[in-house]
Amino acid sequence: MNNLNEPVRVVNVGLEGFAKELALQGTQVIQVDWRPPAQGDPGLIDILSRLYTPEVEAANRETIKRLTESRPLWIDVETAIKAIPGMEPRHILHSGPPIDFYDMCDPQQRAVEAACVFEGWVSDRDGLTAKIDSGEIKLAPNYEFGSAGAMCGVISPSMPVIVTENVTHGNRSWSTFNEGKGNVIWMGAYDKGTIERLRWMRDVFAPTIKKALALTPEGIDIFKLVAEGIQMGDEVHARSAACTLLLLRRLTPLLLAGDADRPTVAKIFDFIGNNNHSFLSLTLTACKAAADAAHGVPHSTVVTAMSRNGVDFALRVGGAGSRWFIANTMPMDEAIYYSGYGPEDAAGDIGDSAIVETAGLGGMIIGSAPSISSFVGGSTAHARASMAAMQSICAGTNPAFATSATDFTPAPTGIDLRRVVRLGLTPIIDTGVLHKASGVGQIGTGIARAPMEVFVRALKENCWD
Amino acid sequence: MNNLNEPVRVVNVGLEGFAKELALQGTQVIQVDWRPPAQGDPGLIDILSRLYTPEVEAANRETIKRLTESRPLWIDVETAIKAIPGMEPRHILHSGPPIDFYDMCDPQQRAVEAACVFEGWVSDRDGLTAKIDSGEIKLAPNYEFGSAGAMCGVISPSMPVIVTENVTHGNRSWSTFNEGKGNVIWMGAYDKGTIERLRWMRDVFAPTIKKALALTPEGIDIFKLVAEGIQMGDEVHARSAACTLLLLRRLTPLLLAGDADRPTVAKIFDFIGNNNHSFLSLTLTACKAAADAAHGVPHSTVVTAMSRNGVDFALRVGGAGSRWFIANTMPMDEAIYYSGYGPEDAAGDIGDSAIVETAGLGGMIIGSAPSISSFVGGSTAHARASMAAMQSICAGTNPAFATSATDFTPAPTGIDLRRVVRLGLTPIIDTGVLHKASGVGQIGTGIARAPMEVFVRALKENCWD
Repeated sequence: MNNLNEPVRVVNVGLEGFAKELALQGTQVIQVDWRPPAQGDPGLIDILSRLYTPEVEAANRETIKRLTESRPLWIDVETAIKAIPGMEPRHILHSGPPIDFYDMCDPQQRAVEAACVFEGWVSDRDGLTAKIDSGEIKLAPNYEFGSAGAMCGVISPSMPVIVTENVTHGNRSWSTFNEGKGNVIWMGAYDKGTIERLRWMRDVFAPTIKKALALTPEGIDIFKLVAEGIQMGDEVHARSAACTLLLLRRLTPLLLAGDADRPTVAKIFDFIGNNNHSFLSLTLTACKAAADAAHGVPHSTVVTAMSRNGVDFALRVGGAGSRWFIANTMPMDEAIYYSGYGPEDAAGDIGDSAIVETAGLGGMIIGSAPSISSFVGGSTAHARASMAAMQSICAGTNPAFATSATDFTPAPTGIDLRRVVRLGLTPIIDTGVLHKASGVGQIGTGIARAPMEVFVRALKENCWD
Repeated sequence: MNNLNEPVRVVNVGLEGFAKELALQGTQVIQVDWRPPAQGDPGLIDILSRLYTPEVEAANRETIKRLTESRPLWIDVETAIKAIPGMEPRHILHSGPPIDFYDMCDPQQRAVEAACVFEGWVSDRDGLTAKIDSGEIKLAPNYEFGSAGAMCGVISPSMPVIVTENVTHGNRSWSTFNEGKGNVIWMGAYDKGTIERLRWMRDVFAPTIKKALALTPEGIDIFKLVAEGIQMGDEVHARSAACTLLLLRRLTPLLLAGDADRPTVAKIFDFIGNNNHSFLSLTLTACKAAADAAHGVPHSTVVTAMSRNGVDFALRVGGAGSRWFIANTMPMDEAIYYSGYGPEDAAGDIGDSAIVETAGLGGMIIGSAPSISSFVGGSTAHARASMAAMQSICAGTNPAFATSATDFTPAPTGIDLRRVVRLGLTPIIDTGVLHKASGVGQIGTGIARAPMEVFVRALKENCWD
């Protein structure tokens, strides 16, 4: 019994609202974060009960094995139309699930427009919509082709792409090079300078990098640099500063050994070195190549892709065949906005880059990047708690990506659909924030949560036999 | 009273031996790390009681202010004899306090010999000792000249040195460039290739870097790069990997803008980039320039230099004038030895580089480098405990060097002689380990503790009025 002279102290299990009410009244409350399994839904509990089997466990182990044994090497630079099988000469690839141009969020529409101007197909929005209406320009999602794009994720036929081969499994992935900050199409912003930069990237940058890369015939081991970078404060999604420096150290001797003229070498060095996201494109191709290799194990409940277009969120599950599960994308969970902007200005969560979390990096190892972990509370204790939460929804770990900042805790790897639904906990996705309408591009950085609905749908709609 | 059916549990306060005995017998012991103040020495307690005054506190605050407000810029590269005031044409400078050649540890003797061969003064040991005996070659400690050298720390007249100016206070410091791994004189090892490398550094490397640096007239802000590097896993004494990459990003555009031929630029890029200690020399000059500026505040009990030659350890205190206090150096405290070597092979702790800890870096912020913090227990909790211990003997903090890996705890800064003696706790110094006799150079990495004796001596022998 409580002594009436002492203040009331409460331990509240479950519904948080009650605890908040008491706390507002000055009562000391300990909130226990308990939720009924699978939100108490008997249908879900029934499906789940049939998915905790040795068969599924074995399938998930095999999925994790394929994922963690992957060794993606950056082997070449090539024009998208030449590199990506199935891409057509009038294709514009984009991030996220399939979407009609008119349904796209504003920044992705702008990125598509910029790409078509860059290709010389159109000169303005009217020209673009005419050719889209006539079917002359066709939109298609990266994920149908094995490519991946950050944020708006637009790839047009003559853009140069990074060619990455997962030598463990023989499959490939592609992404464009990162353009940097400011008016850049990956952020859905463009002006004349943007198009000029894209041309320089196509005509000067890419051919020079291609030649440099040819001088190291074994290619560049992307996950090796990632492993080094995450010991230096990167979580390789929102922060790739260290990996970018490591890339510079690897590439510069090759550039100097080649025949590119000196001002070009200097310009390329600055272009890569002055953009902390330069390495991100490599990470995307590596994670995509690893996750694609891990896909297709019958009975696996491990997620093999997450992809968003600012409107819809798409999920692919290892044992669910070629089907993608789709739900509305989520607003940002926590973000720091640039001065003058707020949540009301933000477009929906966007980009194929959630493949980074799919592969056990980014939000899964948020504690390795103290500058990013402020979104989950800021301290190393918060970062560890956040990693523990992500581990609770993952089927495996990756010791290769053990982060020193969190006592060499191995990276939580292989998001398990069963656990997400059972625990009611969705993956953290580190990401940037785009303006929803003005065309200014990036307005912040933060974390998004994958929508629970898409996991529930995947569980309910798939035939798990 | 203890229930006789339960195992005996003991809390032991003070002398650790008793606890160890019980622990060996399987008894559960909690050891409380308590020591009587100033080792219970009434003379020391008497001196200490007179040093906790507002006057000393103010002097220490002023010392910390000078230390933390220092802004050392790398402004030039110059030949040692031209750069270092007072250096004579037949001087060989070395790390640590003054010492006769025959009393030097073996690796430092070898480094002196290599420098004299490099200068063309002698061709072997016999030639060297003859010229030392005749007084033709003169040895002198770096600290008499404001220079600083890592490990053996040898600077001969024609060697190029980094010129660093503390623009806040107008004073300068100098150090040689880091030679890298293998047979290198900073580690007391040399062969023909070593001398050739020193010549290349003098004739090609240094003039090229000098020209590159001239293209950035404001110089390179060393502590700015340090602040960035310690967010990327460096503690900038035993680990400078990130700072070295940041330096490459800063220097390469200048090298490309200059007129050095391309193979030279490539060779310099590799020379810096393939040696994770490249940045260490810059750190040394910056810390020395900051600590020298902080020296000389009357009544200050803050340490302004620590320096070792493998035999003796020298200490300088802010308010103790030009006097250095000297005691025998300590064996390594904890170290990881290269395969085939152990503590019995180790030379004594050596180098002017303990100026790094003097300035609030290295061992003071050991938690910022998880790869190094294994020497204090390995976990982030151990690292934080270690930083807390170092904070207990420091008079101030430096928020500019707050380390993200330890929740942005500001760097413990300004080792306070009073606290060291009162608590019986000496500073941690991150360092390399040299072979004591064989000439193989480095055989390990670890931490050393400054000898308590030298702090006691400084307290007893100085006139604190």
